[in-house]
Amino acid sequence: MPVERLIYLPLGGAGEIGMNAYVYGYGQPGRERLILVDLGVTFGDMDTTPGIDLIMADCRWLYDNRDRLEAIFITHGHEDHVGALGLLWGKLGVPVHCRRFTGALARLKMEEGGHPVDQIKIHEPRPETITAGPFRIQFVPISHSIPESSALIIDTPAGRIVHTGDFKLDGTPVVGEPFDPVMWNQIASEGEGVKILVCDSTNVFSPLPGRSEAVLATPLREFVSSQRGMVVATTFASNVARLKTLADAGVASGRSVCLLGRAMRKMLTASVETGVLTDFPQIIGPEEAANTPREKLMLIVTGSQGERRAATAQLSRGRYLGLQMAEGDTFLFSSRVIPGNERGVIRIMNAFSEMGVDVVDDRAGLYHVSGHANRPDLEAVHQLIKPKILVPMHGEHMHLRAHAAIGESEGIASIIATDGMMLDLTGERPVVAEQIEKGRVYLDGSVLIGAMDGVVRDRIRMALNGHAMVSVIVEEDGRPMPDAWVELMGLPETNRAGAPLAQDIETELGEFLEGVNAKTAGDDGKMDEAIRRIVRQVAMEEIGKKPEVTVIISRLAND
Amino acid sequence: MPVERLIYLPLGGAGEIGMNAYVYGYGQPGRERLILVDLGVTFGDMDTTPGIDLIMADCRWLYDNRDRLEAIFITHGHEDHVGALGLLWGKLGVPVHCRRFTGALARLKMEEGGHPVDQIKIHEPRPETITAGPFRIQFVPISHSIPESSALIIDTPAGRIVHTGDFKLDGTPVVGEPFDPVMWNQIASEGEGVKILVCDSTNVFSPLPGRSEAVLATPLREFVSSQRGMVVATTFASNVARLKTLADAGVASGRSVCLLGRAMRKMLTASVETGVLTDFPQIIGPEEAANTPREKLMLIVTGSQGERRAATAQLSRGRYLGLQMAEGDTFLFSSRVIPGNERGVIRIMNAFSEMGVDVVDDRAGLYHVSGHANRPDLEAVHQLIKPKILVPMHGEHMHLRAHAAIGESEGIASIIATDGMMLDLTGERPVVAEQIEKGRVYLDGSVLIGAMDGVVRDRIRMALNGHAMVSVIVEEDGRPMPDAWVELMGLPETNRAGAPLAQDIETELGEFLEGVNAKTAGDDGKMDEAIRRIVRQVAMEEIGKKPEVTVIISRLAND
Repeated sequence: MPVERLIYLPLGGAGEIGMNAYVYGYGQPGRERLILVDLGVTFGDMDTTPGIDLIMADCRWLYDNRDRLEAIFITHGHEDHVGALGLLWGKLGVPVHCRRFTGALARLKMEEGGHPVDQIKIHEPRPETITAGPFRIQFVPISHSIPESSALIIDTPAGRIVHTGDFKLDGTPVVGEPFDPVMWNQIASEGEGVKILVCDSTNVFSPLPGRSEAVLATPLREFVSSQRGMVVATTFASNVARLKTLADAGVASGRSVCLLGRAMRKMLTASVETGVLTDFPQIIGPEEAANTPREKLMLIVTGSQGERRAATAQLSRGRYLGLQMAEGDTFLFSSRVIPGNERGVIRIMNAFSEMGVDVVDDRAGLYHVSGHANRPDLEAVHQLIKPKILVPMHGEHMHLRAHAAIGESEGIASIIATDGMMLDLTGERPVVAEQIEKGRVYLDGSVLIGAMDGVVRDRIRMALNGHAMVSVIVEEDGRPMPDAWVELMGLPETNRAGAPLAQDIETELGEFLEGVNAKTAGDDGKMDEAIRRIVRQVAMEEIGKKPEVTVIISRLAND
Repeated sequence: MPVERLIYLPLGGAGEIGMNAYVYGYGQPGRERLILVDLGVTFGDMDTTPGIDLIMADCRWLYDNRDRLEAIFITHGHEDHVGALGLLWGKLGVPVHCRRFTGALARLKMEEGGHPVDQIKIHEPRPETITAGPFRIQFVPISHSIPESSALIIDTPAGRIVHTGDFKLDGTPVVGEPFDPVMWNQIASEGEGVKILVCDSTNVFSPLPGRSEAVLATPLREFVSSQRGMVVATTFASNVARLKTLADAGVASGRSVCLLGRAMRKMLTASVETGVLTDFPQIIGPEEAANTPREKLMLIVTGSQGERRAATAQLSRGRYLGLQMAEGDTFLFSSRVIPGNERGVIRIMNAFSEMGVDVVDDRAGLYHVSGHANRPDLEAVHQLIKPKILVPMHGEHMHLRAHAAIGESEGIASIIATDGMMLDLTGERPVVAEQIEKGRVYLDGSVLIGAMDGVVRDRIRMALNGHAMVSVIVEEDGRPMPDAWVELMGLPETNRAGAPLAQDIETELGEFLEGVNAKTAGDDGKMDEAIRRIVRQVAMEEIGKKPEVTVIISRLAND
């Protein structure tokens, strides 16, 4: 009988920050019983995924091994950890385990996907233990930028794994549980200790120790108090502690507080209903806010990343829900721009500047703290947990690489494992067991498409090169009509000399169609190729660009 | 006779960082004689200008007043100051004044545009004075991140203007002239002093005094010396001082130095030919570099902003000119990422990380200094030049606004003037005289198109929504054939249930065409609208997306 083994297989989140999905398995090779930790999304951008609503890991391997999957565990309620649940659960069909607040958000995802919400199983943190096949799992409270974030203890016959989830070392997180070094020391000391640490790598390049959420209270209160006009602040809606700190600052400066944006209300409701938030100040609605003197008003709004439809972007374009920014008001980004979102945020900042609004961001480091452990914090956690093996996760390749280097320098067997790389963690050192075909799946409108389907590639090409469409009619006798119809989209109408491009193409195509031989005319592929070549050649001469070309050949049937 | 006035009209560069083009005029209103300072470009991005090669200010106002234009002055050779010369000079047709090094680059632009290079007029710096209509202009050496950058003294009957161009306060710039406070004090003291300071605002949000280029020599030398493998460094090719500092660091650590990238060679040639660079170390070509042991090699390469075709990106994809990075090598970004370029640069960093290459950027502030004056530097310059009026330029709206606020706080009459805003600077305070229609022009392939022509809008829509094309044939008797041909591009082929989308649309269109009345069938506009509506409706139902639709109606003529 083959020896049983412990495997780790990241499907998403190892090689990018986003779309987390980590598989653990234990059993005989190819027959391991499996659990999935997190099932998140990431967001597209115009450069690489125009028109795509959400991106998630390709979980085909998991669908193919669905009969071996015991359960899903969700560490916390951020979109990059729970966002794909509604979209993909139907193909997995196993119970989803999480804590209460995360469960409230996971339930919404299941509802959106039309899945049974009773598959969401709510658990208390350690010492409660969930058994899933050969695994015994405990949720361990850990501090992050959303309430009830949890690490997982995954006890296996091959030893104890700590899967950190997203975390920081925060002893005073304002909302939610503090990081508890005593408890972590205990976790590291029980039995044979921790064999494997699978660890957040997001902030490995931040050289200074991380700061507590609590340090923001005074600067934010002083800042809000010192403003003359209306104060509008944005942050991630899921950062409930920040919402509270901001709202407290508003109230302390004699302002009424109003929250704008669907996500704000969703998070506040979930926080209050699950009891993680008990003392949020009184808030007013947008209508009442519109009737409040602006120097007595503070808005807390969605859209810190410049999202086009969120409240921040709406306010930067003018009136939103009866509220409008004006000269003398202040807009505060109590947030950090995620790399790639700079353009959108800068556009909004300049729009506010044009209104005479003072824009304050976190350049000076006073009004925002990160939710992830910095390099010295990671080092401290390695020391505290004392794992034999370190597997960095939640990072781009360069983050994983830097984190593994730290582990190695500390004498911990470390490995860079990216999406699709299955590790065998049974022995003293991690070993690559297999390479699974990794991939991404896109939500496009209401359809899931593969990243390599060519849909997005064609969109990018049309955006870069424009699109020319040609309609050619082939008569009953097999001869093409000499008139081709050409339509252009996303292309200049005229060349440098002002001559109309479509007409020039039609003329060239006319000459071709007039003289084409019967064999070519009868072959759609050859016609398509020839026409395409002519269109691109004429366009290159006339406007210096080779457009994408679509040819529609309509063959008239003999009736 | 109307009173003569002094006007300032930014056409580009005031409200964005890039595409600089500033007009000054003096004379009776509407009859002012004009000069243009700088004629630059900016670069597009996928978010807002997919497929666009270059962006420049819409200079229509200047074309309409071409008979009043005396001359063009170029402050320095950066693309955002000289890049549009080849593309737009033909519509202006006046002499172009600059210093020697800038002239070498301007000449290349004129050659590319097929314009007479003898229109480039080379000048010595102050005290040489150029007369252009009512203006007397001097080039004043000022430190920046390219050799021979110059401010302009523009003496007018209404007083002295100092147009700073891009600058920093650098007493030891390695290559080129240091900032000379004594000379600037003299400029501020001559005659009635400086009336108007038109001033760079790029770094107004940087709170600490700027650092000299010279401070990089030691850290870079120590860094390069401490690396085991090949060292590859990137920076802006036009930063000739940095090229020298990097090359010196390479030589000092016993390495042969090789420059890769067309722009590198262009800049080095121009520097040597014009005498601004006299002591650049010996360099080797790529072939010799490929035969040099990697621990004895340093490459200096283009592409610090992640440009897809530059050497950095090429190396991140594999072999380039026979050279390839490998485990143990180091890649240094001696540069800062311009906001908006993060995604591309991060992609490259991760590609290097996958190769086992150590990537070092300027996170720690050791290996790069900015070429622009920081906030304290700007304040120092205000004090030194003592203008009565401050007009911030070279900034986004928020930069101009912050800079104007500094001026006001210092008791200098300051104004936020953005593109298209014509100021009357004759009196004690700046006054808005007129608002010119501002705009942007795109170079798309070989054609110049207007930003509002709809070409780019259509590209963005195709990228976000996909594109459906329909071909319908109307027979000689005016009845449409019931078969419509549908082709999709950038759209999923099938819906959630796997049914082919194009076929579903064809079926719906068939029903419509079968039953359409003669009046609608005879009207291209009505047919187009009806077909478009059906396509979008079916697509919305099937894939949750409304594509762009192009309808080609081919009407068969009675022969």
